[in-house]
Amino acid sequence: MSEPVTIIGSPVSPYVRKAMIALEVKGVPYRIDPQIPFLTPPEFTQISPLRRVPVYLDGPFVLNDSSVICEYLEETHGGTPLYPAEPRWRAKARWFEEYADDHLGRNVVFGLFFQKVIRPFVLKEEGDKEMIRKAEEETLPAALDYLEGVLPEVGFLFGDRPMMADFAMSTMLLNARYAGFEVDAARWPTVAGWRDRCFKAEPLARLHALSDTLMTTRRNDMQGVIDAYLAERQSAA
Amino acid sequence: MSEPVTIIGSPVSPYVRKAMIALEVKGVPYRIDPQIPFLTPPEFTQISPLRRVPVYLDGPFVLNDSSVICEYLEETHGGTPLYPAEPRWRAKARWFEEYADDHLGRNVVFGLFFQKVIRPFVLKEEGDKEMIRKAEEETLPAALDYLEGVLPEVGFLFGDRPMMADFAMSTMLLNARYAGFEVDAARWPTVAGWRDRCFKAEPLARLHALSDTLMTTRRNDMQGVIDAYLAERQSAA
Repeated sequence: MSEPVTIIGSPVSPYVRKAMIALEVKGVPYRIDPQIPFLTPPEFTQISPLRRVPVYLDGPFVLNDSSVICEYLEETHGGTPLYPAEPRWRAKARWFEEYADDHLGRNVVFGLFFQKVIRPFVLKEEGDKEMIRKAEEETLPAALDYLEGVLPEVGFLFGDRPMMADFAMSTMLLNARYAGFEVDAARWPTVAGWRDRCFKAEPLARLHALSDTLMTTRRNDMQGVIDAYLAERQSAA
Repeated sequence: MSEPVTIIGSPVSPYVRKAMIALEVKGVPYRIDPQIPFLTPPEFTQISPLRRVPVYLDGPFVLNDSSVICEYLEETHGGTPLYPAEPRWRAKARWFEEYADDHLGRNVVFGLFFQKVIRPFVLKEEGDKEMIRKAEEETLPAALDYLEGVLPEVGFLFGDRPMMADFAMSTMLLNARYAGFEVDAARWPTVAGWRDRCFKAEPLARLHALSDTLMTTRRNDMQGVIDAYLAERQSAA
């Protein structure tokens, strides 16, 4: 049997969780090296040109970008599909995943999580108050207005099972929660209902539980917590 | 025969050119509605949630995001492929296309072209000098250093024919040129050689000629220039 693939990045990152979701749905054994991009050595650029996580390593084969990794796993593994088969639906799925990675990511991860969690608690500096205000009061409410009109009232985007687009968008809302931003269920009932269904679905539920634990784990203990999670997954498989 | 598809957006945008490249490689008849995102009415949000171009319209079917459009055309049309068939190569192709759309786009389109061309000449306001300096002196040189190490010295990324990744990255350099930024061939000889080969390849060469013409065309005359281009393509087909 070949070596398991390695994902570089912490499961606290929604982009890293996307790669983990794809690996778990496809039943691919993997390891996690929970590096934090801001704290990596200069050589990290050699395997991640934009110094981002996740990085996917399979021997000498390296991939960057969570969506690239997920599509690669879809194309190289059978079993439960991560994308719908019909081309128009698959195109819509790619749009929602890009909307999550780019637009929700910019506002949730950079606008809120980085400013309100990473900068004060990891980098020991103040976050950008204007960026936080803009995300909380303007861009995220506008994004939720859009999603309220396109998300389904029952089930998931492409039927009765969540796919990559559901996971990619909803898992951003966990990091929004870490940064103190909750979806107001009175104002966006369809988004809130869909989010609750996604958060209860596997593998998202257990990956969110892992992420929650890591949020209160000291950096030196993170590898152990992750390895225990993966060992449990391995024995369950 | 069904109606031709419509692309909303000007060929001066590298993202719009990407959609046009895919349509021309696949031989799909199309129309162009050369709207400028900053000048569109509020209702534009209904077909483009992030108010971006290109928008792909095929009757009631709407797609956003240039990469989503290109992959959709690849999946729904045979003929000359836009992406390599081998999954690892295709993953690399997607990475380079994302690198073009996101990183080169942020710096070339937003950092340079928007600040140095659109803001002064279309919006009649000053561009952000610090953003321009950072793109010219830091991020673009670093991006070209990266590309110098990964681009091929002969041919194209995936062989002797340019594919979507080559087109997506190289066509960004046309907008860099419009904003006064040229690749220094002494410092980045591999990038400069590859760019020259891409710029000479069809359909990029003729789309760049069209874009050059539009750069000096008054707004009211643009539709006519584009329609004449498309009529000539139609009669050549």
